[in-house]
Amino acid sequence: MDRPALPRAADKPLFTPGPLTTSQSVKLAMLRDLGSRDNEFIAIVRQVRDELLALAGVSQRDGYEAVLMQGSGTFGVEAVVSSAVPPHGKLLVCSNGSYGERIAAMAKVHRIPVAVVRAPEDQPIDPAAVEQALKSDPAITDVAIVHCETTSGILNPIEAVGKLAKLYGKTYFVDSMSAFGAVEFDFRACEIDFLVSSANKCIEGVPGFSFAICRRAALETTAGNARTLSLDLLAQWKGLEANGQFRFTPPVQTILAFHQALAELRQEGGVAGRAARYRANHACLLEGMNALGFEEYLPRHLQGYLITSFRYPTDPNFQFDEFYTRLNDQGFVIYPGKVSNADCFRIGHIGRLFPSDSKALLRAIANVLQDMGVELQPAHVA
Amino acid sequence: MDRPALPRAADKPLFTPGPLTTSQSVKLAMLRDLGSRDNEFIAIVRQVRDELLALAGVSQRDGYEAVLMQGSGTFGVEAVVSSAVPPHGKLLVCSNGSYGERIAAMAKVHRIPVAVVRAPEDQPIDPAAVEQALKSDPAITDVAIVHCETTSGILNPIEAVGKLAKLYGKTYFVDSMSAFGAVEFDFRACEIDFLVSSANKCIEGVPGFSFAICRRAALETTAGNARTLSLDLLAQWKGLEANGQFRFTPPVQTILAFHQALAELRQEGGVAGRAARYRANHACLLEGMNALGFEEYLPRHLQGYLITSFRYPTDPNFQFDEFYTRLNDQGFVIYPGKVSNADCFRIGHIGRLFPSDSKALLRAIANVLQDMGVELQPAHVA
Repeated sequence: MDRPALPRAADKPLFTPGPLTTSQSVKLAMLRDLGSRDNEFIAIVRQVRDELLALAGVSQRDGYEAVLMQGSGTFGVEAVVSSAVPPHGKLLVCSNGSYGERIAAMAKVHRIPVAVVRAPEDQPIDPAAVEQALKSDPAITDVAIVHCETTSGILNPIEAVGKLAKLYGKTYFVDSMSAFGAVEFDFRACEIDFLVSSANKCIEGVPGFSFAICRRAALETTAGNARTLSLDLLAQWKGLEANGQFRFTPPVQTILAFHQALAELRQEGGVAGRAARYRANHACLLEGMNALGFEEYLPRHLQGYLITSFRYPTDPNFQFDEFYTRLNDQGFVIYPGKVSNADCFRIGHIGRLFPSDSKALLRAIANVLQDMGVELQPAHVA
Repeated sequence: MDRPALPRAADKPLFTPGPLTTSQSVKLAMLRDLGSRDNEFIAIVRQVRDELLALAGVSQRDGYEAVLMQGSGTFGVEAVVSSAVPPHGKLLVCSNGSYGERIAAMAKVHRIPVAVVRAPEDQPIDPAAVEQALKSDPAITDVAIVHCETTSGILNPIEAVGKLAKLYGKTYFVDSMSAFGAVEFDFRACEIDFLVSSANKCIEGVPGFSFAICRRAALETTAGNARTLSLDLLAQWKGLEANGQFRFTPPVQTILAFHQALAELRQEGGVAGRAARYRANHACLLEGMNALGFEEYLPRHLQGYLITSFRYPTDPNFQFDEFYTRLNDQGFVIYPGKVSNADCFRIGHIGRLFPSDSKALLRAIANVLQDMGVELQPAHVA
């Protein structure tokens, strides 16, 4: 799992939740000008859509469709929420962080009634609480959950919640932004109707569009529900199916980069291969951070390998802004925290990063702590 | 105005309304991975926003703001329509083509009452008809018009209509998708409150975002009007102003390309310089097409220099699909027509194209006509 010989631009490695470090070959795929009606481009879009289905372990023959949507991941989530919830529907949002709250917020903007099952940010969603909500509120028509809550890095039980959604006859949305492509799961066993992820996460493309993997029968029942023109998921799908073209100008170069990124994901051994590299990045970093005395925010058994939240050291010499800036000056980009009940920063393990990058980051962190005069008590490693 | 020494990728030149042919240097600017919170990226976004204002001949000091919005141009237009029209407002749409109709359609999706002043596709909007509508319907709060209607290539009288909107106290939107950056006009004299254009039109960037140039006072009055989360123009502006960052993941590489495209526009002499090149492309092509016997759809005095619609030849040997494919095989991409009352195809004069490209296209068209056995009567050139 050493770094391959592919060149990489001189930019600082991004230990963030995205946009991520991508391979030079992914970026080089953007050095083209193809028309949006070009046959080569249309064939590439078709390949991309088929490969996304294959990554999910489903296919058009099985009744699934991949729909690309211009804009960031949030645009894709809003496309699903605003296109799929029926006019008199009610959305149950399972939330243990900012991205769950964002789904509730976007539903409210569309005047969609919302119920929320909340868990603390350091706990996964409790399926029993979801079942209780479904039992007690028959107005609920749709259920939404975040797969890997980027706020903390926690992984939620999407299969248990999906089985409940199915049992109670609800439509089920999964926001798999930070997980899809690097976390193995059984799409059909999860009973997912609509899953959303984005070009610039674990598939390691550049940002510019998101995508939804949809159960076709669920998608087809959404006719008349769309609350916007641009984010109308059914119309977007019908447009792509009709002639392979987007209704509105696609981000051509971003899609070309993604097409290359999918090829590199395949070369790496697909989801299993990518998950192995990210796990190795995570394990290497966590061991080193623990040795330095940092503590994770999440209990070990809940910690995903995509992104880790670390608590600030208690030494008063530690100031996050200074820590961030000094690391940045040494050429390493980390990310501020987002949990509301603890002071944390985050380190991502996703993107074109290898354990050697984790090690280089650890050396830089040790240097910066020394320069800042921060002392940590090496923690007891569980 | 000969082609400069800049390398260009081997892709076919795109004589289309966009995505366009871009310079190799614009594409090369994408070979980077910057984090969305990176100081360098934040500074680039600030420069891009300031330069967009400067291109419009306005500035923050004068009370104007540039807001970038992820997605295609349509996403930007929908951001303005869905964020700016007040809850009990009514939108007057001036329409003489598909893009005017699209504005009316998106307003309807948002349940915004709409009135439409229509002109035939080969006629500009008549300001007298707009005034009549404004006089007769006091419920109207906002007026929208398309600057260059890409359907035909016609330019609409945005200043006369803007003065009427101002006179009657209405908020004024201009969809300047295919014009902004290559058509000189006086932004303030046009009384524009919100103008929308896109990265991949006359500024010659790659597709992936749009932008709105907003009169700040008009933008600030839109609080509480937004009908979506992702396309909330005021929230997007406030986010950018608060810390220079986007609310949701920006298309980093597309913005880097656009930053380079703006520098190249400046080097070309700004709007006047670019307009001169596009006029030269158009003049060269038109002369050659007329000599071959093709007729424009629009009367000469209404024809813009951004895109030209040509009528199909009457010779029954002419089949557009074959003509398109043969040209494509020779390495030239043109565009189908979109007007509803005549069989036309379109040729764009925008993008990284030069009169030498127009000439090469003309030679290819002459060859293809000969191969297809199509005979044209050289038209009387007005």
